Amino acid sequence: MAKTPNKLKARLPRGFVDRSAADIRATDEMIGKIREVYEHYGFDPVETPLFEYTDCLGKFLPDTDRPNAGVFSVQDDDEQWMSLRYDLTAPLARHVAENINEIQLPYRTYRAGYVFRNEKPGPGRFRQFMQFDADSIGAPGVQADAEMCMMFADTLDALGLKGQYIIRVNNRKVLDGVMEAIGLGGDENAETRLTVLRAIDKLDKFGTEGVKLLLGEGRKDESGDFTKGAGLNADQIEKVLFFVSITSYAESAEALAELVAGSENGRSGVAELNDIRALVESAGYGEDRIKIDPSVVRGLEYYTGPVYEAELTFDVTNEKGEKVVFGSVGGGGRYDGLIKRFTGRDVPATGFSIGVSRLMTALKNLGKLSSSSEVQEPVLVTVMDGDIEALGRYQKMTQTLRAAGIRAEMYQGNWKKFGNQLKYADRRNCPLAIIQGSDERAAGEIQIKDLIEGKRLSGEITDNVTWRESRPAQHSVKEAELVATVRQLLDQQAEDTRRQNGDN
Amino acid sequence: MAKTPNKLKARLPRGFVDRSAADIRATDEMIGKIREVYEHYGFDPVETPLFEYTDCLGKFLPDTDRPNAGVFSVQDDDEQWMSLRYDLTAPLARHVAENINEIQLPYRTYRAGYVFRNEKPGPGRFRQFMQFDADSIGAPGVQADAEMCMMFADTLDALGLKGQYIIRVNNRKVLDGVMEAIGLGGDENAETRLTVLRAIDKLDKFGTEGVKLLLGEGRKDESGDFTKGAGLNADQIEKVLFFVSITSYAESAEALAELVAGSENGRSGVAELNDIRALVESAGYGEDRIKIDPSVVRGLEYYTGPVYEAELTFDVTNEKGEKVVFGSVGGGGRYDGLIKRFTGRDVPATGFSIGVSRLMTALKNLGKLSSSSEVQEPVLVTVMDGDIEALGRYQKMTQTLRAAGIRAEMYQGNWKKFGNQLKYADRRNCPLAIIQGSDERAAGEIQIKDLIEGKRLSGEITDNVTWRESRPAQHSVKEAELVATVRQLLDQQAEDTRRQNGDN
Repeated sequence: MAKTPNKLKARLPRGFVDRSAADIRATDEMIGKIREVYEHYGFDPVETPLFEYTDCLGKFLPDTDRPNAGVFSVQDDDEQWMSLRYDLTAPLARHVAENINEIQLPYRTYRAGYVFRNEKPGPGRFRQFMQFDADSIGAPGVQADAEMCMMFADTLDALGLKGQYIIRVNNRKVLDGVMEAIGLGGDENAETRLTVLRAIDKLDKFGTEGVKLLLGEGRKDESGDFTKGAGLNADQIEKVLFFVSITSYAESAEALAELVAGSENGRSGVAELNDIRALVESAGYGEDRIKIDPSVVRGLEYYTGPVYEAELTFDVTNEKGEKVVFGSVGGGGRYDGLIKRFTGRDVPATGFSIGVSRLMTALKNLGKLSSSSEVQEPVLVTVMDGDIEALGRYQKMTQTLRAAGIRAEMYQGNWKKFGNQLKYADRRNCPLAIIQGSDERAAGEIQIKDLIEGKRLSGEITDNVTWRESRPAQHSVKEAELVATVRQLLDQQAEDTRRQNGDN
Repeated sequence: MAKTPNKLKARLPRGFVDRSAADIRATDEMIGKIREVYEHYGFDPVETPLFEYTDCLGKFLPDTDRPNAGVFSVQDDDEQWMSLRYDLTAPLARHVAENINEIQLPYRTYRAGYVFRNEKPGPGRFRQFMQFDADSIGAPGVQADAEMCMMFADTLDALGLKGQYIIRVNNRKVLDGVMEAIGLGGDENAETRLTVLRAIDKLDKFGTEGVKLLLGEGRKDESGDFTKGAGLNADQIEKVLFFVSITSYAESAEALAELVAGSENGRSGVAELNDIRALVESAGYGEDRIKIDPSVVRGLEYYTGPVYEAELTFDVTNEKGEKVVFGSVGGGGRYDGLIKRFTGRDVPATGFSIGVSRLMTALKNLGKLSSSSEVQEPVLVTVMDGDIEALGRYQKMTQTLRAAGIRAEMYQGNWKKFGNQLKYADRRNCPLAIIQGSDERAAGEIQIKDLIEGKRLSGEITDNVTWRESRPAQHSVKEAELVATVRQLLDQQAEDTRRQNGDN
């Protein structure tokens, strides 16, 4: 067959991936478990579309390295710009504001969905990825933030991560207090404050030295790209670094109170942290699960109070061969001003976001994806004769198996090379092959080949004749016994698997 | 509180919608049932991203009313154009072509996902909607098309639509035969043929007279917009109309054979239709479920053989008050050339697509959405005192209920207006409210209010004092009995509901 000369190149756009059956099933299982916890907490699903008007989304993305501020945008034929959502919080704020008269507050919802970042793609850095968010809107008190932290902890427990995570809690107001203490209060310093926040947020990535550079003049990365710093002086930098280096809130509480002394923001932030600690403690969540930690920042600009982050604490080996803790799988915080942009009045809100792919990677690393996501592969009804009457019979057999609740398919490729049919069954991990040639048909019989037992033979058989002559170990049954025998063989295989896995 | 003067308007982009909890739950339930049938047939999930390179998608969309051919496109920073997928077939073709050396054919997959059309939005015409597709790739024979029709029928059965649908089957080759018979064969007439196909596809919408205009000079719609026609002469139009008006394939088989006599395409198309009929019949699918029907066309350009469409046959009233059959909820066909665009060699394929929202509308109309999608609303733990110690106790009660498997939440709004708490519980349909003021606390007791029984009272209570005085019928229990009593009351309510629904 002549090749088309100008054929197209099949290729995925950079930064996007296809997902396999195993990945989809595992994700579905994980999402199902997360959803169960959220439902249990009284949250309900809601969903917004992938597009929003660009002005409704706002510009809250950190680390944008693109001129169009990290989002994918198109202009509609009425000249309005629309963008693909970059997170699930901004669209929720729009949804609540648009329906504020119909929605009963507090409004407790969750949603999983894809978000898009128009960033430079890189290894492990995707331009489409899934987030799973939960939010309480119209919830002014720290008890709502405390609940979010507990729900996050319970979610990780439900996923089998007991003892391998910590929810770290901080408060933007405390950070603001520190800013005021070093003379960066007031609207005129808003941009510098944001640069400082983003520098602190890089502590995990660049270490203290890197953050020091970002707080000062700036930092050149390995590729030579220069990131301009916040321009703080040595004294300011020292105070910020003291603050973010606090590892024991309890021990450093006094020094912290001293640092933010005189700032109303700082005082109230510290009080809120103390309240959150008291609330989660009385509900039975110790410091091993939910911990106050002043180094947590969260990059997004819109947070106004408590912020929290879930860190997985087990070690993994990074690309440089170093042992590092797995790190963040999501986080969130209070964003009391986001809905006000639309409504003009305060609608307090708090919520968090789980990075679904990242959490998935963690569960894979730990072998926490249960085997319940391994489905039974289909029984293959092979095709020995290709006339319509015979095909009708094979199809009927297949339907009979399906009607009995057995996953089954008739071979749909070119039936003439029987070896290909068995190769297909082998690569597809089919448990059984159903075979009926004209001789068997005349005798009213069907051959059932156990492919798990007989796997090693599959490579040796290349055509129908060889198969007829070699006849690997298999079962010959009357047509009427097909379903019963198939079921019995599948049960035996399942029993063997259980015994091998030792979970008898 | 002063309103921000330049506040943003919260609004959804035109042609997009938010989805409610009830809608999401019902869709999930429906998709779960569809998935089960596909899995049963031996299909596995696969997923592609929402973006593809524009050239990989190709231009196969019918009815584009936009200059950029009906898709949303953005240019990447390397100058390549990317588009949001407009269906799930073109991306699958790209996926298979890109991974052709790793994929074991036949490749049987399914996927549900959003697709996007950059069309003029209108009532019931959305720019983001969900499709659920299944495809067999590397399946050359009509047995694969027959299987698709049977799987589609089984899917509709599984959704409770037994006896209320018909899968109508046609073949593009027969259509091609008719085209050849009226002198429209050959590459030079490709565009005219496409116009004819799209005219025929409008039979449901515009009736015979409308299609006649579209086959001839053209048709002006109610808004005055003119659609240019195919420019056929009277004799050509008559033959096309005879063909698409065939209602009984069996009775018209002879006349049809005569019409396409001399066309190899026509002959082979008719033979394939006969084979499909024979195959589905031998598997037990009568003409009441799967029927040959020459009026089926399917608008997409890439079909090369059998095409099929699922029509729901029950009556609904349209916007003009007329009774009409509900109509198509999806369809598909054979697209042997789509992967060849990339690989240069034939990779035969067939598959179909379900319009998820449209099918959902049908199920709603018929009341086929089971009550299993109605979830138990949460028990509300109310807040009588707002100090941190009391909040901690309420939170602990809530966690105790959750730990016992009971959906529960603590009130997270402003707790000071108790009436608001009960109003919230009422609008949220909470079954029970848990109440503990300082008096109850001192006595080690908890009040449990049955909100289903006591619903009528909720409007009358506006503050904590009124509530304390009126004391509507409710249960006072010891703290230790909380979980047991809540469970007992929920069971009673469930029992009452069952009795009311008469399904005892």
